[in-house]
Amino acid sequence: MLSLQDSLDIINREIQAIQYPKNPAGLYEPIAYLLALKGKKIRPAFTLLACNLYRDEVDAAIRPALAWEIFHNFTLMHDDVMDRADLRRGQPTVHKKWNENVAILSGDAMLILSYIFMTESVTENLKPLLNLFSQTATEICEGQQYDMEFEQRPDVSEQEYIEMIRLKTAVMLGASLKSGAIIGGADEKDAQNIYDFGLNLGIAFQIKDDLLDVYGNPDVFGKKTGGDILCNKKTYLLINALNRADKTDKAKLLKWLECGDKPRKKIIAVRNLYDQLAVPEKANEAILFFYEKALTAFQAVLVDEDRKRILKNIAKNLMEREF
Amino acid sequence: MLSLQDSLDIINREIQAIQYPKNPAGLYEPIAYLLALKGKKIRPAFTLLACNLYRDEVDAAIRPALAWEIFHNFTLMHDDVMDRADLRRGQPTVHKKWNENVAILSGDAMLILSYIFMTESVTENLKPLLNLFSQTATEICEGQQYDMEFEQRPDVSEQEYIEMIRLKTAVMLGASLKSGAIIGGADEKDAQNIYDFGLNLGIAFQIKDDLLDVYGNPDVFGKKTGGDILCNKKTYLLINALNRADKTDKAKLLKWLECGDKPRKKIIAVRNLYDQLAVPEKANEAILFFYEKALTAFQAVLVDEDRKRILKNIAKNLMEREF
Repeated sequence: MLSLQDSLDIINREIQAIQYPKNPAGLYEPIAYLLALKGKKIRPAFTLLACNLYRDEVDAAIRPALAWEIFHNFTLMHDDVMDRADLRRGQPTVHKKWNENVAILSGDAMLILSYIFMTESVTENLKPLLNLFSQTATEICEGQQYDMEFEQRPDVSEQEYIEMIRLKTAVMLGASLKSGAIIGGADEKDAQNIYDFGLNLGIAFQIKDDLLDVYGNPDVFGKKTGGDILCNKKTYLLINALNRADKTDKAKLLKWLECGDKPRKKIIAVRNLYDQLAVPEKANEAILFFYEKALTAFQAVLVDEDRKRILKNIAKNLMEREF
Repeated sequence: MLSLQDSLDIINREIQAIQYPKNPAGLYEPIAYLLALKGKKIRPAFTLLACNLYRDEVDAAIRPALAWEIFHNFTLMHDDVMDRADLRRGQPTVHKKWNENVAILSGDAMLILSYIFMTESVTENLKPLLNLFSQTATEICEGQQYDMEFEQRPDVSEQEYIEMIRLKTAVMLGASLKSGAIIGGADEKDAQNIYDFGLNLGIAFQIKDDLLDVYGNPDVFGKKTGGDILCNKKTYLLINALNRADKTDKAKLLKWLECGDKPRKKIIAVRNLYDQLAVPEKANEAILFFYEKALTAFQAVLVDEDRKRILKNIAKNLMEREF
């Protein structure tokens, strides 16, 4: 059976082995550049590990696993243009290193490439896999659309936020797992339970991410905390604070949102307001709620507990991480 | 058997009947907007007509036909962003009517939608169809990349230009035909000949387009001539003029390329240079060359001449058009 590290080794080896056409270099170099940057690669690993629940031989799942990683990086390339982001994984974004047109067009080619990888090695179950892939891809676009709309709206509810991160982040974790299960030969019920496991884990994961951005230990988290506060990002924390605050606290919070200078003061003041409003406790409750939903779904998967241990441990580590 | 008008009627009816999700409206409205603008819709018509070469019933080809039209419009949405174009079919482009982020994200969703349409109704031959679709889509991105690179290069050869329009424009005509033939049940040799028919017709069509932009009768052509000259577009004509001119004429031409005002004078002067260098004759030769290659390929298609008449007439009309 594959460990997480085994599957990451396969993924990294296969990504390095991708042969891009030589010309036009301007189209393919940005794709190779982005895919070569360090990343967690949790999605393709999920595909291999879910396949491995059902069979020892996971070769047929490798190209579809890479398809998720390529698709994920396509969304990063285009999202970074839309968000005007300068850095990605500590390196210049594609539209900064080249230009916006390059990021748009190479991103398009990458989306097409992800379809090529998803269909290349699969003979059985091609149609359900493609349907899963296209539906997930569409939902991720919807999630990005909501995310951009929410940045312009003062009145986003918690429910709307959960729906947004479900679409933007969580469905891809569910679907990368489910695709592996389908290739492995899971029946529909198992495949759906595995999807629900990944989906709920993904929601918990994103709320945890929001929490760590404010409360994470910077030595362990690997980046400075407070970034989301400084750019007024509509996170689970900010949305809850806005919805739970009384008139006075809300006025204070809104005043800080308007403040563009004094970054240290702003982070401390907003964090104090979060503390006062018990926002981190609320976030931890939500994380636990979705984590337990994930575990319940995984419990229902009809595979030996022994085989399930690796994915269960990954879920546990994701929830306990402080980085 | 379907006439061109019959197939256009089917396509227009089916495009109007597409049901988009209600939310997020910001993602789907731009897609509906662009698809509702008037367009030639020659690609989806080709898919139906090619299928109709082999069987009377073309229902199975309708969704794949729409896939080409959706894909084509996706390329327009993103190309218009990259080219900073304000108008498309006489109406504001998506990034002008909304904004650039909308055009990027709705374009992405449209590309995914085209895959959904391509695979939806097909049960047999799904894999060759998908391979054709993905390869064509990739080539179109490559063509757009070359097109953008050529705008920055002074030394583009005729051969390079033909290769660029092959990728950017012609492969989609070939592939939209070939997909219909595959669905209709053509054997591989026929399908390839039909592809070559569309491909060479597409190259002829694009050179004709370049020619009409300078020499077309504006009353018939429907738009003012000389637009390509004013924006120094690297067309078949300009590339040939640059490559054929002697030192004196080349200096004159380059001087006019640098000239940003005096539009009427610029059009007349550049057109005179084209005439002097026999560029229109050269263009007409090239058009005829590729048109005849197209006809030879179509000749080899093993279908009753009677059934082939409609597509042959469309090709003839495209070549004889003055608009």
